[in-house]
Amino acid sequence: MHEKEALSAIREAIRDIADFPKPGVVFKDITPILANAALLHATLNLLSERYRKSRIDQVAAIDARGFLFGAAVADRLGAGLVLLRKQGKLPYHTYDKTYELEYGEGTLSMHQDALSKGQRVLIIDDLLATGGTAAAAAHLVEQGGGQVVEIEFLVELTFLNGRNRLTGYSIRSLITY
Amino acid sequence: MHEKEALSAIREAIRDIADFPKPGVVFKDITPILANAALLHATLNLLSERYRKSRIDQVAAIDARGFLFGAAVADRLGAGLVLLRKQGKLPYHTYDKTYELEYGEGTLSMHQDALSKGQRVLIIDDLLATGGTAAAAAHLVEQGGGQVVEIEFLVELTFLNGRNRLTGYSIRSLITY
Repeated sequence: MHEKEALSAIREAIRDIADFPKPGVVFKDITPILANAALLHATLNLLSERYRKSRIDQVAAIDARGFLFGAAVADRLGAGLVLLRKQGKLPYHTYDKTYELEYGEGTLSMHQDALSKGQRVLIIDDLLATGGTAAAAAHLVEQGGGQVVEIEFLVELTFLNGRNRLTGYSIRSLITY
Repeated sequence: MHEKEALSAIREAIRDIADFPKPGVVFKDITPILANAALLHATLNLLSERYRKSRIDQVAAIDARGFLFGAAVADRLGAGLVLLRKQGKLPYHTYDKTYELEYGEGTLSMHQDALSKGQRVLIIDDLLATGGTAAAAAHLVEQGGGQVVEIEFLVELTFLNGRNRLTGYSIRSLITY
């Protein structure tokens, strides 16, 4: 598939689920993309190709849907994979960053020895909404000595203005709403 | 890397963390494998190669560390990817299976429309411990109309006898303790 055709097919496969995870929210369900081998392949290619000449050392994937793309993208780029996990999930010494959610707080963690100083890092997640999680991810990567090359998303909900929380970072999304 | 050499390097990279997630438990930390691009690549190859001629239609990955390998393995096999998630995370109609944990219960879910009848499914997770999660996964795949070709793990803790809970299924693990 060519890029334009692939993007169009990926967009068509995303399914709107009303009132999930709560009333009034329309959830963008990406599972139909994953279940289609050709669309999965095209998505992994599109998420990777832009960085082929970017000398990415590590892909940092955000728990849990970022994990779906992280390893395949890292492998395509000849990079390693670093995990940004919900607090309490990583077993070794961690850096932790708490951020606001719509109701309450979340905390993201990264192993303190996950990165070497100066490593070039691509952060990846499935969805950019309000940007809180991604901002915490960028903070942790920098705290660990990494340099954030870009933060990449499969889907961006532009009406939530997540980019406003990510000023100073280069942001890329494949599909926007 | 040849297979034997790769398996040895992967095993060496796994890090023992004492007293995680609770006192007396030694956790097998796979993050050093992921962070090493060559080992990540070798691991994805070793997880996939065995199935090149198995006509796998869907790889079913278990939340959350199974997600790390699922997409890359599915992509190598020309298969789609199905998610087996903790309850409440999948937005559409689900099948749910509750299983015993050491303390309390867990519930795994799969979208009801994730599989077509008769699809050949490879279930993948990072670790086989007591086998409760994997048994629930196999149950869901079959409830959804799939046929479990094999259940594959990166690491198996043989002393926990997880295979006893998975009788009738073909089990494969790359690294055993």
